[in-house]
Amino acid sequence: MSDSQMHLAAFVTAGPGRPGGWRYPGSVPGWLNQSYYQNIARTLEAGRFDLAFFADILSVPDRFGGSTDTQLRNGALGSLRLDPLHVLATMGAVTDRLGLAATVSTTYAQPYTVARSFATLDHLTGGRAAWNIVTSFQAAEARNFNRDSQFPRELRYERADEFLEVAGKLWDSWDDDALVLDAEEPLFADPRRVHAVDHAGEFFTVRGPLNVPRPPQGYPVLIQAGASAKGKDFAARWSDVIFCSHASLESAQAFYAEIKERAATHGRDPRQIKILPSITPIIGPTTAVARQLHDELFELVPPLGGLSTLAYHLDVDLSTFPLDERLPDVEVPGVEGHYREVREITERDGLTLRQLGKQYGGRVEGGFVGTAAEVADGLEQWFTGKACDGFTVQAPYQPGGFEDFTRQVVPELQRRGLFRTEYTGNTLRDHLGLSRPESGEWTHRVPTARKVLS
Amino acid sequence: MSDSQMHLAAFVTAGPGRPGGWRYPGSVPGWLNQSYYQNIARTLEAGRFDLAFFADILSVPDRFGGSTDTQLRNGALGSLRLDPLHVLATMGAVTDRLGLAATVSTTYAQPYTVARSFATLDHLTGGRAAWNIVTSFQAAEARNFNRDSQFPRELRYERADEFLEVAGKLWDSWDDDALVLDAEEPLFADPRRVHAVDHAGEFFTVRGPLNVPRPPQGYPVLIQAGASAKGKDFAARWSDVIFCSHASLESAQAFYAEIKERAATHGRDPRQIKILPSITPIIGPTTAVARQLHDELFELVPPLGGLSTLAYHLDVDLSTFPLDERLPDVEVPGVEGHYREVREITERDGLTLRQLGKQYGGRVEGGFVGTAAEVADGLEQWFTGKACDGFTVQAPYQPGGFEDFTRQVVPELQRRGLFRTEYTGNTLRDHLGLSRPESGEWTHRVPTARKVLS
Repeated sequence: MSDSQMHLAAFVTAGPGRPGGWRYPGSVPGWLNQSYYQNIARTLEAGRFDLAFFADILSVPDRFGGSTDTQLRNGALGSLRLDPLHVLATMGAVTDRLGLAATVSTTYAQPYTVARSFATLDHLTGGRAAWNIVTSFQAAEARNFNRDSQFPRELRYERADEFLEVAGKLWDSWDDDALVLDAEEPLFADPRRVHAVDHAGEFFTVRGPLNVPRPPQGYPVLIQAGASAKGKDFAARWSDVIFCSHASLESAQAFYAEIKERAATHGRDPRQIKILPSITPIIGPTTAVARQLHDELFELVPPLGGLSTLAYHLDVDLSTFPLDERLPDVEVPGVEGHYREVREITERDGLTLRQLGKQYGGRVEGGFVGTAAEVADGLEQWFTGKACDGFTVQAPYQPGGFEDFTRQVVPELQRRGLFRTEYTGNTLRDHLGLSRPESGEWTHRVPTARKVLS
Repeated sequence: MSDSQMHLAAFVTAGPGRPGGWRYPGSVPGWLNQSYYQNIARTLEAGRFDLAFFADILSVPDRFGGSTDTQLRNGALGSLRLDPLHVLATMGAVTDRLGLAATVSTTYAQPYTVARSFATLDHLTGGRAAWNIVTSFQAAEARNFNRDSQFPRELRYERADEFLEVAGKLWDSWDDDALVLDAEEPLFADPRRVHAVDHAGEFFTVRGPLNVPRPPQGYPVLIQAGASAKGKDFAARWSDVIFCSHASLESAQAFYAEIKERAATHGRDPRQIKILPSITPIIGPTTAVARQLHDELFELVPPLGGLSTLAYHLDVDLSTFPLDERLPDVEVPGVEGHYREVREITERDGLTLRQLGKQYGGRVEGGFVGTAAEVADGLEQWFTGKACDGFTVQAPYQPGGFEDFTRQVVPELQRRGLFRTEYTGNTLRDHLGLSRPESGEWTHRVPTARKVLS
């Protein structure tokens, strides 16, 4: 794939997605059935998407008022979330090329388990797996895993770094040619080409080898969404793909330039990191119809649904602030990128907290509302303006939002030569134009401090 | 399903199965591809099997000589094992009725993660998930999870009991009618019908609720294979299905009577526990051809492949005993059921350790070698003789062994009225004739000591 073409990920939700989206008459509440995801997968593959992407949360969020009630009542973010790895497996089962990305947190899992999961998924699907690496930052999540409170951010990222190091060692524990299958000898696997990893670190002690051969892609595609300084550093070292969120072209351009530079600082080819900001295009046959659809969807956003989602993202209990005043400056332990976005919106539009809730829940990331041609114009501007290498497309309502984009915007992008008309490779790395990591690649990605340790 | 019909599970391996089976010309080394498992799933569903069942191990075993070499070289048990949950999801994606069982250990996982996994799988597949509950007893597994040695058995079972208690609470954390989906109100889920679990025990502190609604089956079908006193007690309290291994009809009958009695002691209806001993039928168009096939398969069993598998099962390093002498009495920290079986074989046939390795690797559980009618005779004898409620069918080689059984033995059982000709329900509980647990059912299954605590 040439650098002159963009990449497309679909941000699918294994539960109700955008606040209020489930209330839209065109949405299908099929989140519990495999056929729902299989149909989305077929739509995306027909649209030649690079990958489907699933976020994840390890609790029903309770950051708004210390209770899960607001979340559940409004069907807000995380009120219902299936385990994304199984959803991916079911989507992979009915497709041949579509990449499959799941979020798995490094905070409460073990590297042997997670490395094995992704190696399995990568083999089963012929090299289509991707791992969106996150650390868990909510007290509600900690309380489902034997703790009272979250770990400090510093510690979470240290653990994540070591987690990735162990995962890399485990994926490399079988040489690419270790599986011999000589029935005569017999020699199933060559013991000289399967290695213990003997990792002994600060967080993990893991002997290995993995009980799964090296994944077809070497490592699954690694995705990260860090907007904090720690997160951006981690992403620049480990990520093949970066998922982010920006309220304006300028903000996206600044982030793009910074990450590519950081990657170069870490000795990586900046073209080997793909930055795919999130957008929520709303498409209509005419501009007016698209705006009408936007307004109808916006009307369905419950302000508290938006606020409880924002409370989760910022990790700030927004129920303690007056609803009819402007949100004051707050300390944000959560996702800094979302806070930056919210400050931009609040100041630009002079919103009260209640209005902010509705606005945040109903915001159109990237601002793309219009005809397919108009949306394509916007995407082209961002892409050629070095704001991104492509996009992570959110659906304003599922699954219709993906069908609209695939039927209308994708052909427009294809006509302009901005997007593939056929897959040219088999694996997700092929689609993204990413090289396959050689065995031992992880050694180049761990922080210098860890290298000295090992 | 009437009690006059047997149940059939297929013991599928997500890697090379029976020692030497992978060397057989008719075997297909497709363990890494989803189509391999999807084809097996379609075969089993065409044969109206109750379920497919996957074992699991969290390491490449190294119990033979403290190295993984013997295991890898011979393709013996656990040399390669994909994560069974993803394999199940891929099989579930292409079938409508087949039950789907995966082994997940309680020793190194967290109950929130595992409860969520199975709830997800049960929803996606419309009520077809089953969990084979094990505790991990190998030092090689411990060393992949930050420990030097395994936990003592007592502790493993105490943890397993509390693990199941937490899982039960989490599955019940959404009432069956909690998901309302009233778009008008809006009321996505009724907060009064979703409950924190607030579990604080010896091993786990979990607040809940789960972020997945109550599974279609209430709880996934619970399977256990405990042959130790602790294991049998655990199984009698928790299990819907018991998987076991017996070298003779008499041994199976004694076990069957004991478990059904234990279940009654725990206040359960003994008919609500299905006991499915493992068999490895070898089938031919004539008795002589079946025996010839048996002999050829037996020839392919590498003695050290069998021994390293046995070393794993017993958790005893058999490399320290002379290969050409009889195995002396040993202390067995591992699976007592397998040791009982091995003592029976060793004494009956007067085998050296090397011969035992080949015999153990190539053994035909249940001794069913013959024509389809002869195998059906044997199954009928066990079933009507109160040795079991059905069988767990292992394939002497994959996937052919399942195709042979489905094409030849299943129709014979159907003709005799011993097995269904069509599925009569949709869920795995329907197939097995198991009632759907009411919310709160877990309280009846925890040990008395834990009930007092909570």
